[in-house]
Amino acid sequence: MALQLGEIIAALGGELHGDASLRIEGLAPLEAAQPAQLAFLSNPKYRQQLDASRAGCVIVAPALREQALARGACIVVDDPYLYFARVTQLWKRAQARPEGPAIHPSAAIADDAVIGEGARIGAHCVVERGARIGAGTVLKARVYVGEDCTIGARCLLHAGVVIGADGFGFAPNQGAWEKIEQLGAVRIGDDVEIGANTCIDRGALADTVIEDGVKMDNLIQVGHNCRIGAHTAIAGCVGIAGSANIGRHCMLGGAAMILGHLTIGDRVTISSGSFVARSILKPGLYTGIFPIDDNASWEKNAATLKQLHTLRDRIKALEKALGPRPEENEP
Amino acid sequence: MALQLGEIIAALGGELHGDASLRIEGLAPLEAAQPAQLAFLSNPKYRQQLDASRAGCVIVAPALREQALARGACIVVDDPYLYFARVTQLWKRAQARPEGPAIHPSAAIADDAVIGEGARIGAHCVVERGARIGAGTVLKARVYVGEDCTIGARCLLHAGVVIGADGFGFAPNQGAWEKIEQLGAVRIGDDVEIGANTCIDRGALADTVIEDGVKMDNLIQVGHNCRIGAHTAIAGCVGIAGSANIGRHCMLGGAAMILGHLTIGDRVTISSGSFVARSILKPGLYTGIFPIDDNASWEKNAATLKQLHTLRDRIKALEKALGPRPEENEP
Amino acid sequence: MALQLGEIIAALGGELHGDASLRIEGLAPLEAAQPAQLAFLSNPKYRQQLDASRAGCVIVAPALREQALARGACIVVDDPYLYFARVTQLWKRAQARPEGPAIHPSAAIADDAVIGEGARIGAHCVVERGARIGAGTVLKARVYVGEDCTIGARCLLHAGVVIGADGFGFAPNQGAWEKIEQLGAVRIGDDVEIGANTCIDRGALADTVIEDGVKMDNLIQVGHNCRIGAHTAIAGCVGIAGSANIGRHCMLGGAAMILGHLTIGDRVTISSGSFVARSILKPGLYTGIFPIDDNASWEKNAATLKQLHTLRDRIKALEKALGPRPEENEP
Repeated sequence: MALQLGEIIAALGGELHGDASLRIEGLAPLEAAQPAQLAFLSNPKYRQQLDASRAGCVIVAPALREQALARGACIVVDDPYLYFARVTQLWKRAQARPEGPAIHPSAAIADDAVIGEGARIGAHCVVERGARIGAGTVLKARVYVGEDCTIGARCLLHAGVVIGADGFGFAPNQGAWEKIEQLGAVRIGDDVEIGANTCIDRGALADTVIEDGVKMDNLIQVGHNCRIGAHTAIAGCVGIAGSANIGRHCMLGGAAMILGHLTIGDRVTISSGSFVARSILKPGLYTGIFPIDDNASWEKNAATLKQLHTLRDRIKALEKALGPRPEENEP
Repeated sequence: MALQLGEIIAALGGELHGDASLRIEGLAPLEAAQPAQLAFLSNPKYRQQLDASRAGCVIVAPALREQALARGACIVVDDPYLYFARVTQLWKRAQARPEGPAIHPSAAIADDAVIGEGARIGAHCVVERGARIGAGTVLKARVYVGEDCTIGARCLLHAGVVIGADGFGFAPNQGAWEKIEQLGAVRIGDDVEIGANTCIDRGALADTVIEDGVKMDNLIQVGHNCRIGAHTAIAGCVGIAGSANIGRHCMLGGAAMILGHLTIGDRVTISSGSFVARSILKPGLYTGIFPIDDNASWEKNAATLKQLHTLRDRIKALEKALGPRPEENEP
Repeated sequence: MALQLGEIIAALGGELHGDASLRIEGLAPLEAAQPAQLAFLSNPKYRQQLDASRAGCVIVAPALREQALARGACIVVDDPYLYFARVTQLWKRAQARPEGPAIHPSAAIADDAVIGEGARIGAHCVVERGARIGAGTVLKARVYVGEDCTIGARCLLHAGVVIGADGFGFAPNQGAWEKIEQLGAVRIGDDVEIGANTCIDRGALADTVIEDGVKMDNLIQVGHNCRIGAHTAIAGCVGIAGSANIGRHCMLGGAAMILGHLTIGDRVTISSGSFVARSILKPGLYTGIFPIDDNASWEKNAATLKQLHTLRDRIKALEKALGPRPEENEP
């Protein structure tokens, strides 16, 4: 398939410099793009790649207009990355195949489940009793939506997602575990995307809540009674234990793990691989990763780490032996 | 739905103080409960919440009887948390919808698979040849039980569970990998619960074994030939590598990772996020987590961590330079 | 079932010492094997287990021929572990049940998907439009292969695998996230094995690529536009963020996490549980794990770790106070 530059401008706006009839056959990264491809430059630190790019046209910000013009065709917009996102959407629509039935015949949908207008339910999906799927929401294949769970409008749930399995709750009883039935459900807002094989458990008494615009990657676990604030983005393999309260506009890096019953404030960013064992209320970037090293160095440092408290005491003793140091402020 | 307090007492026992005809319309946490709701107080450290609670009735231990009576209706029982668990079970039964067929018509069940009495097999489940599902066991939707695997009685397997995929075994062969066929199966005891999208691999030669009463959360990986002892509880995102031997009554926190071919004794608790690289035989609580910090502090500390062994040598050198210290016991 | 030793030799070669008519009823580890079972000894450090083994026959390397002969029957081969792998394959074929239809009737396969000769598609699989499944490839139950993705020949995909869900890509737009449609696909080479519930995302513009002979365990996440080099083995629960470039013949231990946009060279081994936040080009073993400890010790050391940079400054100050030390080389 191909779109002319002029068609892209007609659909998405932007200031075109170049031949509107140029056929664009695909999108590509700046450094790999060919003359029939469209690229974008968002981060000014890659501007030196611009001159060498063979792209047929480049999407740039106003600050790079002159440099881009010197190279060839360009589309000037305030936010090249956002514009690029919209080009991908345009492309996706332009190359879309004719759609099959809105509800795949193999889907198992309870009689009293409510499927919103324009929703699409893929092969082998299961929608249990009392569940509600919002208008325009897409359940790709093999999505499970448990009893009484609600999904908002325009959501996208990828293959293998499980919404509304039981939360993990048991009371000890003479060495065995007695099940605490999970009587809550899951409520998911509008415009939420949930990646493949991700699981969101139903609440114990109240509901687990995912607010509008949350974006979740694959293989994420969300425990019962969590609340995830609007427009928070969560990368793959993250685990969030029960009753954690995550703010709005947060970003959780891949494989970050969040302990239960704690609060993460708005606009907190957790680095990939970090374990969050306490509440974090102040916006900012937080990290806790053991730095990787060659194995021999790691072994020596890890062994010493187990004596770290003792080393600190030895430093104290040395300081004492050297006499009073009034300027010293021990933290 | 609603239950009168008297109906709850008739079903579960307990010493009721208050009006047996009071209609309870739901369960709620102590601090959120409304006058038509039942709450419980298990941990005495929250006893100050009791006086302020608006709950219609509170389940308490004998030690809190007087305080609870001063507030209003209460049910006095020896173990309020266990009693609460049973109330959730009562509630679940009371609000249950009429059940559909025991085996959903979309389930794919091999001719020679054995399905126990009263077992329920949900939509899109797959039960392969030679598999056995115990009496009263429930497979929610999209559960996979591989060839010759056995599931005990009264188990609950949530959506997306995979029992009996091949263990991960290969022999190196001139730079490529030669498959070691996995000839064992998986044997799961009675009263086991397994969370959504959790995977338990079949053994290489002998079986992978999950003993009675084990409770597993979502997205857990259990490698081939593991044995998990009775009544052990495993939180979400845990990984257990092949041939690990986990004791009885253990608790593995979320995202804990257990290396293969090691032994965890009975009654060992592993903190969330910890990596277990050695056997642990003594009961107790074990932890290994890099503490999260603001990113700038983490960067400085992580950089220094890579020199930790050198710092230790420098402390030694300082101690030597300061002269003999006979009282010093270097660990 | 049973095979005579002579049948095994006839199928796989090897130098048999012992009675070719001995019936072997199963395979077992050396220390557990019974007189009707076949075992192997690959690692010479376990050679002391050989004398005590009750196995009917043991597969050994030439160096252990004399010791093995003194005990009883043996098969001498250059690579006992590889030979053992082939015996498991022989066993698997010998005990195989008659096969059902190549494509299970419950599978949902798009009209224009291409299914190679001899491929087998299990129950409740979904193969979307434009997807191609190579000759001899097996999709166990509930595998999802998204639009336009290609799987090579002789692959094995276990239950719950998701190939070609959307990569995780969004552009910020006034506090919300705008979807970047994922226009690439997934290309998987020949002889690849992929474990249960593992997810491999489609590329944003170009494809995500898994080269020939890669072996992946369960619950692994591979982000968009990753490339995984031939014959790399990846253990369970690993996460690989987008655009990571993993070399050939690498080994990634369980739960290792690889940040995006970095390069791992050929023949790099990452220890289980390690977080890789930078490119690693030199072959070798790399590790980054916080060592587990009893909780009380961990607490003290973890608290001190947050002051590590300060401790280093205090050591520096002490060194300065003790006077010039010309031989000191601070790293």
